Amino acid sequence: MPLDDNRYLKGAPVAARIMDEVRAAAEKATGEGFKPRLVSITVGDVAAVDVYVRNQRAKAEKVGIDFEERPFPAEITAEELEAAIHGMNADPRVTGIIIQRPVPSHIPIKAIQGAIHPLKDVEGMHPSSIGNIVYNDLDLAPCTAAASVELLKATGLDLKGLEVVIVGHSEIVGKPIAFLLMSEGATVTVCHHMTRSVAAHARRADALFVAVGKARLIKADMVKPGAAVIDIGINSEVGPDGNSRLVGDVDTESVKEVASWITPVPGGVGPVTVAILLRNTMVALSRQRALYQSTYATESKVAAE
Amino acid sequence: MPLDDNRYLKGAPVAARIMDEVRAAAEKATGEGFKPRLVSITVGDVAAVDVYVRNQRAKAEKVGIDFEERPFPAEITAEELEAAIHGMNADPRVTGIIIQRPVPSHIPIKAIQGAIHPLKDVEGMHPSSIGNIVYNDLDLAPCTAAASVELLKATGLDLKGLEVVIVGHSEIVGKPIAFLLMSEGATVTVCHHMTRSVAAHARRADALFVAVGKARLIKADMVKPGAAVIDIGINSEVGPDGNSRLVGDVDTESVKEVASWITPVPGGVGPVTVAILLRNTMVALSRQRALYQSTYATESKVAAE
Repeated sequence: MPLDDNRYLKGAPVAARIMDEVRAAAEKATGEGFKPRLVSITVGDVAAVDVYVRNQRAKAEKVGIDFEERPFPAEITAEELEAAIHGMNADPRVTGIIIQRPVPSHIPIKAIQGAIHPLKDVEGMHPSSIGNIVYNDLDLAPCTAAASVELLKATGLDLKGLEVVIVGHSEIVGKPIAFLLMSEGATVTVCHHMTRSVAAHARRADALFVAVGKARLIKADMVKPGAAVIDIGINSEVGPDGNSRLVGDVDTESVKEVASWITPVPGGVGPVTVAILLRNTMVALSRQRALYQSTYATESKVAAE
Repeated sequence: MPLDDNRYLKGAPVAARIMDEVRAAAEKATGEGFKPRLVSITVGDVAAVDVYVRNQRAKAEKVGIDFEERPFPAEITAEELEAAIHGMNADPRVTGIIIQRPVPSHIPIKAIQGAIHPLKDVEGMHPSSIGNIVYNDLDLAPCTAAASVELLKATGLDLKGLEVVIVGHSEIVGKPIAFLLMSEGATVTVCHHMTRSVAAHARRADALFVAVGKARLIKADMVKPGAAVIDIGINSEVGPDGNSRLVGDVDTESVKEVASWITPVPGGVGPVTVAILLRNTMVALSRQRALYQSTYATESKVAAE
């Protein structure tokens, strides 16, 4: 049984390992004439997302990925924004496109997200990106979902046959975690607000993922002794000192006494998510180069005919 | 508790209801100048699929959908077949495209399936079709998966909070059933050959779906009393009379004494699957018409600007 402090499954070392891999891949691609470049789209007032964008920029530049911000005015129409994205889809200098949320309410976020070409969908949120995961092509997954799975892998647990319970069935977190882990051989149950007894399911989980946005929903008596608990929630609450603080969907202090691993909030899934975004950028670049190769390089085509 | 014979959840009445809806939709579309048309692609020797194709043709014609067979020689290259599909994608007279399996081994079936435009993917197998289901857009799903869910709905059970266990995690049956039912509010567990105890999961299921291709895998002691059992397997075995016969993945005779509903094999999921293929054709036609409308009809565009 690990010592108390070792029970924290921290994001930083996992993120650092992924960033090292991304840096090596980015250096190699740049040397071969393919400099990776991320474009960040913001619409309207960007104050709410500024801290996220600055963090993405810092991390991207650290591993040798160009980071370009393209702010659009709040009054832009959905058609105009789509046209701008189509331009980026066609621009070979753009490797990947991120849409920073929130966007103004007149912009249909799903349609805009769907306008990004799947080969440049570094957030892994295009329907065909999601569908590819279902088809066991796991390289380009939604960032938060992939980050959560990386943290589980960091425990060293064998995923084959592992009993996994996911609380929360959102399209970009809960469900993609489910397919990612099904493809790895886990037995997966997805619970949500309509589930009769979340506790009954949670208690039999070797690995428990929680992504519902309810502060401290999961208590110690809902966790199997020795389980790995991945806490994806980020909630704001007022602490005993009267200041607001961030807490997860898991009651970390009590669950820590029962679980063998638990991700802290903050400092768990968050740092890994940005690392996955950068890894996805390199996956996107590889796929774009492979398409270019198969379209314009004649050797393999001639051989096939 | 229903009488013994009523425990059989037969496909025919469910299929007939869907066919009636499809016929009405096809008549309406035809009257408006949009005759639905299915194209069936076969490659090489078609004897193995002939009975399926004839059945699809008969059902399609019965509801007023044109059915066109396009046989290709076994020697066709993947590139040539893809080019033919691109032609059908661009042909406004073609509503939907089906690729009859098996195809010769030199044809990469996934890539060919992916060449069909998502708007003409009536089998619901394109990655973006699968991804749309994850995003709760459930209208166009893989036929067998959608048929299985229709049979569960025919029981009248409330899907919200229902404990569902799926045995089998294939991309086009097990996993899509999982997302379809997650979107309907069920609590879903997916088991497979790496699951530690399939029986333990199966026994707690209000609704049990089985799609693994193992004759009589599920016995009475693996089923919760009163459950609905949807048997998607089709296996050939030698009967006591020495002749071969079709059986499902469920030991129907014994499970029938425990379950409240059980789909027979044959006569359960199969007939509904063809009805769903035809329903998907009408969904595809509606989407094509909506796209045409939004592209060429100017009224709404002018109003938006």
